[in-house]
Amino acid sequence: MAPPHPLQQLSIDETNVARDVTLSLHEGVVIEFREIFLQEPPKKDLVKFLDQEHSGQVSDGTPRPARLAKVQYDVIGGSKIPEFHESVINITQRNRVAHEVVSSDYHAALTMHEFATFVEVCQKSPLYLSKIQELKLPAGFEVVIEPWPYGGMDATEENRRYFQGLLFAQDTRSGNPDSNFYAFPIPLIPIMDWTKREIIKILELATGGKGDSLTARNESLNIIDHCKGSEYTPELLSEGTRSDLKPLHVVQPEGPSFKVTDENLVEWQNWRMRLSFNTREGAVLHDLTYQGRNVLHRLSMSEMTVPYADPREPYHRKQAFDFGDGGAGNCANNLTLGCDCLGVIKYFDGVITGPDGTGQVAKNVVCLHEQDNGIAWKHTNWRTGRAVVTRRRELVFQFIITLANYEYAFYYILNQAGGITVQVRATGIVSVVNIDEGKTSAYGNIVSPGALAQNHQHIFCVRIDPAIDGHRNTVVQEESLQVPMNPETNPSGNYYEVVQTPITTSSGIDADPQRHRIFKIQNRNKLNPVSGKPVGYKIVPPATQLLLADKNSMQAKRALFAQHHLWVTKHNDDEFYAGGRYTLQSSKEVGGVGDAAARHDKVDNEDIVVWSSFGLTHNPRVEDWPVMPVELLELHITPSDFFTKNPAIDVPSNKDLISKLSDGCCEKSSVPIRHASSRL
Amino acid sequence: MAPPHPLQQLSIDETNVARDVTLSLHEGVVIEFREIFLQEPPKKDLVKFLDQEHSGQVSDGTPRPARLAKVQYDVIGGSKIPEFHESVINITQRNRVAHEVVSSDYHAALTMHEFATFVEVCQKSPLYLSKIQELKLPAGFEVVIEPWPYGGMDATEENRRYFQGLLFAQDTRSGNPDSNFYAFPIPLIPIMDWTKREIIKILELATGGKGDSLTARNESLNIIDHCKGSEYTPELLSEGTRSDLKPLHVVQPEGPSFKVTDENLVEWQNWRMRLSFNTREGAVLHDLTYQGRNVLHRLSMSEMTVPYADPREPYHRKQAFDFGDGGAGNCANNLTLGCDCLGVIKYFDGVITGPDGTGQVAKNVVCLHEQDNGIAWKHTNWRTGRAVVTRRRELVFQFIITLANYEYAFYYILNQAGGITVQVRATGIVSVVNIDEGKTSAYGNIVSPGALAQNHQHIFCVRIDPAIDGHRNTVVQEESLQVPMNPETNPSGNYYEVVQTPITTSSGIDADPQRHRIFKIQNRNKLNPVSGKPVGYKIVPPATQLLLADKNSMQAKRALFAQHHLWVTKHNDDEFYAGGRYTLQSSKEVGGVGDAAARHDKVDNEDIVVWSSFGLTHNPRVEDWPVMPVELLELHITPSDFFTKNPAIDVPSNKDLISKLSDGCCEKSSVPIRHASSRL
Repeated sequence: MAPPHPLQQLSIDETNVARDVTLSLHEGVVIEFREIFLQEPPKKDLVKFLDQEHSGQVSDGTPRPARLAKVQYDVIGGSKIPEFHESVINITQRNRVAHEVVSSDYHAALTMHEFATFVEVCQKSPLYLSKIQELKLPAGFEVVIEPWPYGGMDATEENRRYFQGLLFAQDTRSGNPDSNFYAFPIPLIPIMDWTKREIIKILELATGGKGDSLTARNESLNIIDHCKGSEYTPELLSEGTRSDLKPLHVVQPEGPSFKVTDENLVEWQNWRMRLSFNTREGAVLHDLTYQGRNVLHRLSMSEMTVPYADPREPYHRKQAFDFGDGGAGNCANNLTLGCDCLGVIKYFDGVITGPDGTGQVAKNVVCLHEQDNGIAWKHTNWRTGRAVVTRRRELVFQFIITLANYEYAFYYILNQAGGITVQVRATGIVSVVNIDEGKTSAYGNIVSPGALAQNHQHIFCVRIDPAIDGHRNTVVQEESLQVPMNPETNPSGNYYEVVQTPITTSSGIDADPQRHRIFKIQNRNKLNPVSGKPVGYKIVPPATQLLLADKNSMQAKRALFAQHHLWVTKHNDDEFYAGGRYTLQSSKEVGGVGDAAARHDKVDNEDIVVWSSFGLTHNPRVEDWPVMPVELLELHITPSDFFTKNPAIDVPSNKDLISKLSDGCCEKSSVPIRHASSRL
Repeated sequence: MAPPHPLQQLSIDETNVARDVTLSLHEGVVIEFREIFLQEPPKKDLVKFLDQEHSGQVSDGTPRPARLAKVQYDVIGGSKIPEFHESVINITQRNRVAHEVVSSDYHAALTMHEFATFVEVCQKSPLYLSKIQELKLPAGFEVVIEPWPYGGMDATEENRRYFQGLLFAQDTRSGNPDSNFYAFPIPLIPIMDWTKREIIKILELATGGKGDSLTARNESLNIIDHCKGSEYTPELLSEGTRSDLKPLHVVQPEGPSFKVTDENLVEWQNWRMRLSFNTREGAVLHDLTYQGRNVLHRLSMSEMTVPYADPREPYHRKQAFDFGDGGAGNCANNLTLGCDCLGVIKYFDGVITGPDGTGQVAKNVVCLHEQDNGIAWKHTNWRTGRAVVTRRRELVFQFIITLANYEYAFYYILNQAGGITVQVRATGIVSVVNIDEGKTSAYGNIVSPGALAQNHQHIFCVRIDPAIDGHRNTVVQEESLQVPMNPETNPSGNYYEVVQTPITTSSGIDADPQRHRIFKIQNRNKLNPVSGKPVGYKIVPPATQLLLADKNSMQAKRALFAQHHLWVTKHNDDEFYAGGRYTLQSSKEVGGVGDAAARHDKVDNEDIVVWSSFGLTHNPRVEDWPVMPVELLELHITPSDFFTKNPAIDVPSNKDLISKLSDGCCEKSSVPIRHASSRL
């Protein structure tokens, strides 16, 4: 059997080898595993192998980079705070090649079993149970505990591992376990000390509105009486579902145009790339080439942060880092045929780790399909009436994560014209808190009676490791600028100047659409033979609002990556995470893109990484309730003088013979018909 | 037979009535018709009728607004400059209700037959013929004349009607009339005096590059020898078309979900609207309602301008106004089944006018279809594993215009969540001029040997006549702003403030994404019962670069609309055109949105119009050649506290049973499978 490709995720067997080796090195102590995943080879070794592979020199016997597993685990020592360890295990040699006891300044990402434990601890806590029993919940309502990361830590707090839970009440009278409990928020938050497995306090939340103090709170125990059910599950909708939507199918009688071989090698329309999946980043694309030319070395969603803007304590701690805190891959949906995409679909499984270190299959966590996205290019020769029009076929990698109430769908989309789009769709249920009857708030919008959807931001960071015809690349800032009318260079005032500025030192830069500021990732060692300019790809940074929190706030210190639109840093092995390796309960961003930029590395004609941050300031609408229509964000990575012409010019312009006329639309006309060709 | 709806475009018969009445009023003189189209009723009368219609009170006998035709024509008087007249004809009463001899300060929009005349005049012009004969075109090459509007007029020029032509050489050796002549630009521009039907001069164009003067010119007559053919027509591609693209069909076995009745009434998924088509604006949507509630009164593409940035004369005059100069509707493609969209399609014909005033059918100028656009909303209850996911079905109106070398596709897209998207796709062949061999230029990019694609902008303006639950609306600017950390209102620094400012006086305002500046069109007389806020729709203005030309340039004076992102004006009947009624050869914008804003009308709680300007600074890439992949721009008009919940919550979440697994993707797994539901 061929050895696994260096970019193939760890198999179940490999995961279990890493588990066994780790256990053997910690005999006599209790180990709780957190994550075991592929540690990608050092880039130098990986690139050497990929170069060999590209030139067809790889066989089963070719030496490969060592097969490494990163293993994250707690060493439990009685009542002591558990020690968090990270080891790197050589799978083939079954030995440990690196080991670190992580400083207690940092917290390991949370696991789903920690969340489960939190719920169990709540349900046994006398403090929690007495608080709940005091509530005068209506008959048939039961409390639902929604575990959340604790958020950033205040400077005054002892640095221990905490969990918190948002509480809601579910109307169980329908007997349907999917009745939407978010419509009934309970203004209490239990906090658990993880080591003690104990609920140490229960925060009582403010419920006031405009004009009220930051702590104003309804002391009534009939706290959800003014709330109102709002269902989204079809069988619970009082009005039922609409009946006038006719089916629309995507049919691919000859199958898809893509090919998947060697587990994770995807080939499609001159593109070739590797897919991997890990529990932190979800789907990652590697080694993207077009017609055999390097384009990107690695493309990933690196981090996101969702800071809430309600100034009332403890909402300043309501700030998720959905990649770093618990792992986007861990939260990936198991996708279902006929639901999450149409047509002919290839699903990929992931491997995740149980608390005992055993690998488990996470079924259908990534899907791959093709889609039609309208016209790709068209020209009509009006002299002859001849129209040549091609459709824009796209290849789509999709993964969707559920984070308690909320959903994000992430897409890597490739097109035939050499372009790459990273798309994010935000959906799910907006986070709500209880608000007194009849009040409105400056901190959000009332989306359902008694339910205040707080204002917040979602800021994403995409990590782009470019390889434009090789690994020595330069980012060039380009602006289009007004030039005052003058007799020498701009006699009629219509000229504008295109100004290019190479980024020479690692840094973070902001979008400036009024200057049409764009960024070209170029290989300045190679000129386009047609234009004479360096080959490159361009990024138009989405000019979305950056982080709004005060620079001195905990929210801002934890998320430096969210404070510039585009970052250019020098590549460092294992520097994958924009918000730093450890975001859970962090009080500042450590080892993220902010630190990488602060090294002031030389980044022209170097092995660089480009990070694009963009997002959404989300002041909820009533229409976002109970499940919000997708909000869509896109980052485009587009060839710019990389090719010698439109690379999609050879896409066939065949008519689709299946399309049909709607009934009665094309009655014969008895009047003269003008054709495009007869216009002149 | 039912009388035509007031928003139904003129029929052929009605057009011919308008022609006959006009001719009868000008007996004994020569009339050349330009355009005959529906003059929409005064808004007051129209709204009265629509209100009756909405409440079901309209029958065939209901009094309707007068059926009016706008007739534009030249009165020819021998060698005199023709007089341009505009009349309004009452079709039913067969009489003229208004008549104006348009000031010779303005020029009528050009017609396709003027373009034809220009080509004929060139081909008979001794001046032109001698210039062409001098050229040493290679054997088999023939000159192609591409008529263009003359552009803005320099102050020093006599105000006459001119036409110009760009010249190219076509390689006829293939015998294929669709061989791409744009690859061979000839640096000559013939200019015609329209009244004299005479080529009055031939401009010799600069061909220099960086470091050369603004007039540097290659005097060689072998002017295209360094150019190189670049084909896009499939049978001319030397490499042929790619063979690895498998078919992808959209199948709607039960037909579309929309219904078209009464010629132009479209109903779909709670939406109801009227479609009309006219030769200037192309497709226009009217009277958009959702569940019977008014949303928009009228939605149209109003204008666009394409200024070129090459400072060399005469390129400052290269500035198209593709709606005002010749009529976008006149340039609309005759769409073809299976090419321009997939699925079940309804085509609509337009009516255009021949030079003798006779109505002609313009076949299939608008199409209507549904499309799937991925996930609409999704939530997975991770406790139960139950995912509810709906698809985003959209209704799409499409029209595509060809302007010599270039194409624009325009889309009005409605979705089930009450949202409206205006989409523009720019494609076609970029405009190129001849450049000396081996040179590069600060004015554009070499996209093919000898062919310089000049830098330019495309700035569009969408006209939105809102009717948010009625016709008295207010635009409110909303910004999300940082608040310095302070103990009273922002103790932790995470709070940001949402600041609303109603626009009270007609004006133009710029986007400011760093302040998350958005605009809500509200009916402040009606509050949302859930949120307590005025019902409204929001616009996030696309923060694209505004017009770059110097404020004192001809280009800038002609296009005030392109100098702010969002304009709010008070409604005036017949004020439809952002760049003014007469853009051809204009030297400034007259009667456009700039003038409307300058009236300083009160616009809060009034009948208002909102204009959104956005565009693309287009510094061409090599990949834009020979036909460019679509560049896509979108404007979103989204409900914001208009509804009491997500209006798409009742969309069925049925599985698509036609979707298939790609071969071999789902081998049975022999290892434990984790389901979403077992995560806790």
